[in-house]
Amino acid sequence: MAEGVAGPAARELATEVIRLLTLAGRTVATAESLTGGLVAAALTDVPGSSNAFRGGVVAYATELKAGLLGVDAGLLAAHGPVYPPVAVAMADGVRDRLDATIGLATTGVAGPGPQDGHPAGTVHIAVSLAGDVVVRTMALPGNRDEVRRLAVEGVLGLLLGRLREECP
Amino acid sequence: MAEGVAGPAARELATEVIRLLTLAGRTVATAESLTGGLVAAALTDVPGSSNAFRGGVVAYATELKAGLLGVDAGLLAAHGPVYPPVAVAMADGVRDRLDATIGLATTGVAGPGPQDGHPAGTVHIAVSLAGDVVVRTMALPGNRDEVRRLAVEGVLGLLLGRLREECP
Repeated sequence: MAEGVAGPAARELATEVIRLLTLAGRTVATAESLTGGLVAAALTDVPGSSNAFRGGVVAYATELKAGLLGVDAGLLAAHGPVYPPVAVAMADGVRDRLDATIGLATTGVAGPGPQDGHPAGTVHIAVSLAGDVVVRTMALPGNRDEVRRLAVEGVLGLLLGRLREECP
Repeated sequence: MAEGVAGPAARELATEVIRLLTLAGRTVATAESLTGGLVAAALTDVPGSSNAFRGGVVAYATELKAGLLGVDAGLLAAHGPVYPPVAVAMADGVRDRLDATIGLATTGVAGPGPQDGHPAGTVHIAVSLAGDVVVRTMALPGNRDEVRRLAVEGVLGLLLGRLREECP
């Protein structure tokens, strides 16, 4: 496991995220669907992560996205869980409910097969900071493992980009 | 990542857990502290895991063990989070709150340093089935990565042992 639970790139990103958040006195919480805990696991791979990582929710069953994270049930019923506004609501919800300054979210299709008409590799990621949410949609290549790993790298990279924009 | 997010042994255990639970129409939810999402990530590594895995909570900050999982705040204040009854309450709490038939929990010290007087590698794991909770305390060797990986193997192995006892 010297390479990190989600690969060396994710470990490097997570290490830098934890370092910057700790320096700034900020905290992060995670809301995950297709990555199934892997974003949280990558962050907690880092020694000292408890200074900046509050915790996370893995809302794998669709109804838990409503119950645990406060995603609007009507939104889920109308569009399914693989939808950019769902990623936004998950990131906002976990930030709020876990009392963190930043929320991260992933939702999408890991594969191997398609889901609800979306091909495997369709992934929406979101980063919620106070008063500012950014969401990105990706079409990721590869098998189930690769899609999950690239989704982890994607959301950690999106957060890191925002942190660096603030303090270049 | 062909070896699985928490190593090949965890992947093999997770695959068998998902297979047996799916056959039995049972579901599992996870409550994690030191493993930080790695138990959930190992379970969702398995294609088709959505048939049996409901979701999970990573309660890394101590107060989230009370807020998200219903662990008694007095218990946490008196004994800290690294305490067998905390593992039991986490497993019971996540089973109940995520509406699963089985709850898994991990709490302990991943390291590198000791925490609250407990050496790195001190880990309590619990499996909650309806009316039956089993808890085990382990002193795990190795560095932070190894302790976390062995804790994942431990709790998945504990569950698998219970499932096989029921249906030998």
